[in-house]
Amino acid sequence: MHGAQQQAVAHRTGTATLTVVDRDGAPVPDVDVTVEQTGHAFGFGNIGFDFVGLANDEVDGDERDRLERLADLYTDVFTTATLPFYWGRFEPERGAPDTVRLQATARWFRDRGVALKGHPLVWHTVQPDWLLGLPLDEVERLQRERIRREVGDFAGLVDTWDAINEVVIMPVFANGDNAITPLARAKGRIPTIRMAFEEARATNPHATLLLNDFDLSSAYECLIEGVLEAGVQIDAIGLQTHMHQGYRGEEAMLAMVDRFARYGLPLHLTETSLVSGDLMPADVVDLNDHQVDSWPSTPEGEARQADEVERHYRSLVGHPAVEAVTYWGITDAGAWLGAPIGLVHADGTPKPSYEALRRLVKDEWWTGPTVLRTDERGQVRVHGFRGGYRAAVRGTATDFAIGRQATEVAVTA
Amino acid sequence: MHGAQQQAVAHRTGTATLTVVDRDGAPVPDVDVTVEQTGHAFGFGNIGFDFVGLANDEVDGDERDRLERLADLYTDVFTTATLPFYWGRFEPERGAPDTVRLQATARWFRDRGVALKGHPLVWHTVQPDWLLGLPLDEVERLQRERIRREVGDFAGLVDTWDAINEVVIMPVFANGDNAITPLARAKGRIPTIRMAFEEARATNPHATLLLNDFDLSSAYECLIEGVLEAGVQIDAIGLQTHMHQGYRGEEAMLAMVDRFARYGLPLHLTETSLVSGDLMPADVVDLNDHQVDSWPSTPEGEARQADEVERHYRSLVGHPAVEAVTYWGITDAGAWLGAPIGLVHADGTPKPSYEALRRLVKDEWWTGPTVLRTDERGQVRVHGFRGGYRAAVRGTATDFAIGRQATEVAVTA
Repeated sequence: MHGAQQQAVAHRTGTATLTVVDRDGAPVPDVDVTVEQTGHAFGFGNIGFDFVGLANDEVDGDERDRLERLADLYTDVFTTATLPFYWGRFEPERGAPDTVRLQATARWFRDRGVALKGHPLVWHTVQPDWLLGLPLDEVERLQRERIRREVGDFAGLVDTWDAINEVVIMPVFANGDNAITPLARAKGRIPTIRMAFEEARATNPHATLLLNDFDLSSAYECLIEGVLEAGVQIDAIGLQTHMHQGYRGEEAMLAMVDRFARYGLPLHLTETSLVSGDLMPADVVDLNDHQVDSWPSTPEGEARQADEVERHYRSLVGHPAVEAVTYWGITDAGAWLGAPIGLVHADGTPKPSYEALRRLVKDEWWTGPTVLRTDERGQVRVHGFRGGYRAAVRGTATDFAIGRQATEVAVTA
Repeated sequence: MHGAQQQAVAHRTGTATLTVVDRDGAPVPDVDVTVEQTGHAFGFGNIGFDFVGLANDEVDGDERDRLERLADLYTDVFTTATLPFYWGRFEPERGAPDTVRLQATARWFRDRGVALKGHPLVWHTVQPDWLLGLPLDEVERLQRERIRREVGDFAGLVDTWDAINEVVIMPVFANGDNAITPLARAKGRIPTIRMAFEEARATNPHATLLLNDFDLSSAYECLIEGVLEAGVQIDAIGLQTHMHQGYRGEEAMLAMVDRFARYGLPLHLTETSLVSGDLMPADVVDLNDHQVDSWPSTPEGEARQADEVERHYRSLVGHPAVEAVTYWGITDAGAWLGAPIGLVHADGTPKPSYEALRRLVKDEWWTGPTVLRTDERGQVRVHGFRGGYRAAVRGTATDFAIGRQATEVAVTA
């Protein structure tokens, strides 16, 4: 890392002092210690939607090979995966939720060192047909039960949830009949949010629960202030930043982040995307309204996307309030809206944006195997990005963490 | 009134049954009763800014004549006047507030049967220079004192206040340095609103206190929901509708009113305006940014304005949640932004819009002197717009009111 780059992310780093000791606890001077990073404290996330079939052994042949190569690319960079809990797809037939398949998928990720997040517990879009037309009090009862069921069934596997999604527009949403909009309209936004958080919290007190929205205007500020004033405990503020209409730039993005940082809560950039092809016209308001037959990735678009991904991550990692960034798409194959927002081509080869992000996450912000020599007190000092580390001395390995506070670790030789 | 028109405003009307009695209390059948309306329960407001000089005997000659003629036009139609309490103009020199002149103006209006409203107690715009740069806790102390001073000094004269103005944008306002934006940013929107309402309420428990905003998007809904959730008592929701860029139409206006009506609070259209000349370009975001040398009223514009004023008032009076509409300008002379939004030309002659509004307020929605004949029980039944009425029998007059509930009134012959 160069000086300026180090400075920009100094708040992301920490220090550990390792003391190598022998079996009697005596310091061992002048011995080699090989230190290497094993994980990031910062959440580098992506969607895990593509791997449900693979995790459940539902694919074989070329498709299996394709997904396994995609999984290698995924797990090399990403530390968290967002799994789809859209009610209408998770439980299209009432009483037959897709729990087992999603549990298998969550375990598959966990076994590969990837933490899970569920998205979303309450939303007005992608609703089950069978919910529509039921009386509001029954809708509320079913919504509460569904929160408890999913959070309970996945506790220990999925401990981070978008508790509720897009509440700013929820009670006035007019782009499709659903049962949740009338409920939110009748209850009011804050009681609807309280319902989501209280049910999820009661079921899994250890869960990290997010409020998530695409509306990043003053409306969301007003909503958050009301929710905090009402005493609802939010663990992180989720900020969507789909940029199908073009990268908004560091200045606009950080000004936005600053506005939400003032609530003193961690910020998660929950859904971020940048296209590697033509931009969506600026006059499209609801991105879902833009339907195209073909939306190819182009060489110029890929160069631009790589540059923007690097700038975007660099600026966000540089902001102390941001604790996670989830990119919304690993591959163009089956990407949302058919847009070339993936970091990997549909054919499985990485785009320049993938390489750019990997270089940041696993090189510039990463400590590879490094040999240090203990001083006369048997000590070495390790400075690096916060996260998991491993120290090996004479074939014996010790895991340790670098966190916000400087730590001291004893390493047995 | 025609049937459809009567139907549209049925919720605005009420019934009183008058029983004419002699000195012994015996009913007097078959006698003439002359009934006439004396006032409206609905608030037909306008700004009273133009009359401060006249009310304080600061003008004479032609200017005095002009203002007296304007006052006649004003009081013939409008039942409430909004007085200017912009801090920067009300107290440009610290410790020398313009209290006495504003009190005289308020009394002048009151003596002419016009109720008063003060605007605003807290706002980030039109701030005194001397406030800028003071420490936040001193700004807060001075702001609290200023609220108590004005509400106390005017209690009994001005009992309706915009307690706080434009809070959605307040903490992120970037169009001019001021001391209130940093205060709102530090405190948060809801505590800032609580400050305004609690100070005003404590000083005048009988006051009607409004939250007022130009931002009518979901942001204002979210803010209101947070404020209500936080238990701050709002007496009415203020909705600004300056339409320098064109009338938004009944459908859009009523859809907006519906969104805010769902909080069950009275709605005041606190600032409404329609131009009788060219429209401001649609791409202007902050109306204050549009500066023109000359903005004339035109014959076509005046015909359009008259039509729109009628449609606008008809639709708003037709909505049960609306309790007041304040037009923002009686005359083009000195109108905000130099725009021809007045209902009266700068030369003092009424525009067609004035005549249109007068016809609604004092004709279609008004009961002029009407002779009724008592039945065998000595009774007549009066049905009309809610408000003040007078009944005269054989030269003796009795005042009564028509309200939401049917009433019975004894009238002494």
